Amino acid sequence: MTDKKRVTIIGSGNWGSAIARICAQNTIRHSDTFERDIRMWVFEEQIEGKNLTEIINEKHENVKYLPGINLGENVIAIPDAKEAAKDANILVFVLPHQFVYKVCGNLVDVISKDCVAISLIKGLDYRDNNLFLFSEEIERILNVPCAALSGANIASEVAEEQFGETTIACQDPKYGELFLKLFHTEYFDCNVIADQRGLQICGALKNVVALGAGMCDGLDYGNNTKAAVIRRGLIEMRKFGKTFFGGVRTETFFESCGVADLITTCSGGRNRKVSAAFIKSDKPIEEVEKEMLNGQKLQGTTTAQEVYAFLSARNMTGEFPLMTAIYKVVYERAPAETIARDLRTHKAIVEKE
Amino acid sequence: MTDKKRVTIIGSGNWGSAIARICAQNTIRHSDTFERDIRMWVFEEQIEGKNLTEIINEKHENVKYLPGINLGENVIAIPDAKEAAKDANILVFVLPHQFVYKVCGNLVDVISKDCVAISLIKGLDYRDNNLFLFSEEIERILNVPCAALSGANIASEVAEEQFGETTIACQDPKYGELFLKLFHTEYFDCNVIADQRGLQICGALKNVVALGAGMCDGLDYGNNTKAAVIRRGLIEMRKFGKTFFGGVRTETFFESCGVADLITTCSGGRNRKVSAAFIKSDKPIEEVEKEMLNGQKLQGTTTAQEVYAFLSARNMTGEFPLMTAIYKVVYERAPAETIARDLRTHKAIVEKE
Repeated sequence: MTDKKRVTIIGSGNWGSAIARICAQNTIRHSDTFERDIRMWVFEEQIEGKNLTEIINEKHENVKYLPGINLGENVIAIPDAKEAAKDANILVFVLPHQFVYKVCGNLVDVISKDCVAISLIKGLDYRDNNLFLFSEEIERILNVPCAALSGANIASEVAEEQFGETTIACQDPKYGELFLKLFHTEYFDCNVIADQRGLQICGALKNVVALGAGMCDGLDYGNNTKAAVIRRGLIEMRKFGKTFFGGVRTETFFESCGVADLITTCSGGRNRKVSAAFIKSDKPIEEVEKEMLNGQKLQGTTTAQEVYAFLSARNMTGEFPLMTAIYKVVYERAPAETIARDLRTHKAIVEKE
Repeated sequence: MTDKKRVTIIGSGNWGSAIARICAQNTIRHSDTFERDIRMWVFEEQIEGKNLTEIINEKHENVKYLPGINLGENVIAIPDAKEAAKDANILVFVLPHQFVYKVCGNLVDVISKDCVAISLIKGLDYRDNNLFLFSEEIERILNVPCAALSGANIASEVAEEQFGETTIACQDPKYGELFLKLFHTEYFDCNVIADQRGLQICGALKNVVALGAGMCDGLDYGNNTKAAVIRRGLIEMRKFGKTFFGGVRTETFFESCGVADLITTCSGGRNRKVSAAFIKSDKPIEEVEKEMLNGQKLQGTTTAQEVYAFLSARNMTGEFPLMTAIYKVVYERAPAETIARDLRTHKAIVEKE
């Protein structure tokens, strides 16, 4: 046994593969800190009669989720999560949030005692009228410290080494430095902050705001209206964080995980696109989603429902007029114009620092 | 003489005409506060052999700068600035900044003693290695309090009564209420803040950032890179304000004049468009500007030069790597890739509250 850190990626989708590739570059670069090989848990699938893990290990390419990109020969695909995570010192969670509890629970017994985790999972967990952050859920289940990473990061662009930024949120500066070594590259500029909650709230709620931006596009509203919706969205994201989660800081919204990711999600992005098409159709959003996304899921609709239920349970929908209007247009088929009308009549309440 | 406020608009371009239209609606709505008629100073031009002022007064339309829009029969075009401003209680300055000093100086003797002003002028004034805000220049020249208005406001959309927001910055709450009455409508949602300096710095520097966003487009950079440039731009705008101007507040950057206007300017907008074309050409930017804008002027290039000169004089270009890179690409024909490369090597220094 050496002191070098063993890194395991839990997840192997589009973003998981791009992140594994970065980590694999950095374990080579910082060979004094990390074991060279990165283990990546891959949910096994058959591709033309062959196991996806075998293809990845032979071709060093995730042909299904990140085709055309060499991940590095030191990314080792493993179909069993426990085996992948055995004795791991660093766990990188990057999987759809519906799988978190099932996978995470299995790993408690196998990971190293000094293990630390980082969550790249999008969204929040809603149950018993409450919202939970996945970094805190992972901390609770595995009893390890868990950081979080989020930013304006389209996976394919990161994989192509186009310049971009991201944000890492981490309480303990010691781990902050470790994660910086693992993720920062010349083309993937990481900034470390301490506000995990604010970072994850941005990552979840931006998708709801993007539905609102898409409605503006679907209604052929102009730039002024769309800018107002995005700005009000940012204000409500911040207010939501500060009202319901302790420790959320205004500075977080200036990071890549905040305003930058919001801009990207509201100008491109599937939430915006599907929402724009939904407004022009008579179909429920789930149907438009199915037609346009080829099996992929919208994050924004689920989060819009969860946020609305959370606010309703607290009699606070009126304090978040944009989030409420978006929910009502999507799920109560309120007139789409509601979104601008409600902004006219409700002032966003700005939280003072 | 009544106690009702006489409103004069100094300027009659695209934005000036749209704003005159709003004021004309509000003087009717708040007839207890304002004189019904709005006087608008119009730089006289001949349109098909007829004076522009006469056309406006007959057709209630600025056929040259805001065609197709009825301004209201209570907007009175006047070719002489002194006559337009005679006994005015409220002066709205909305003219190209090169005319400010010439016009403003003429008005000292004619305005009412209790006159207040508001500046919608874009840009900063650079002289003697210093940058001046037009609201403060107007205060100095006219010896009246001067507020400022700026936001994500495309004039034609405001004129069409599409929903949008703007920001009014005003030290004295008494005048804040007055300006709210004059400018706020159901479709033009005004928020009053106290930070005139921050507001005007946003209005000027966003155009420089838009040049950077345009370079990303011209180089076919992806969304991650462009989002990083816009975010770094926002950070540098704030840092510039806080470093060189007292009283600039972080909250201002969450207003329509801040992040919302920046988003609009970096996604549409002529600075972005010309910069993208410039990057793909071998011509100086002035030539591209001339070809594309049909006589209209870019604000961002002038401001980029002024900001660079200002920073150079203080040996502080290194503290503002994005603004500096944009200047060098435009005026020293540095490789366009500089813009992303310099972001890789320089960390934006975040000002803590």
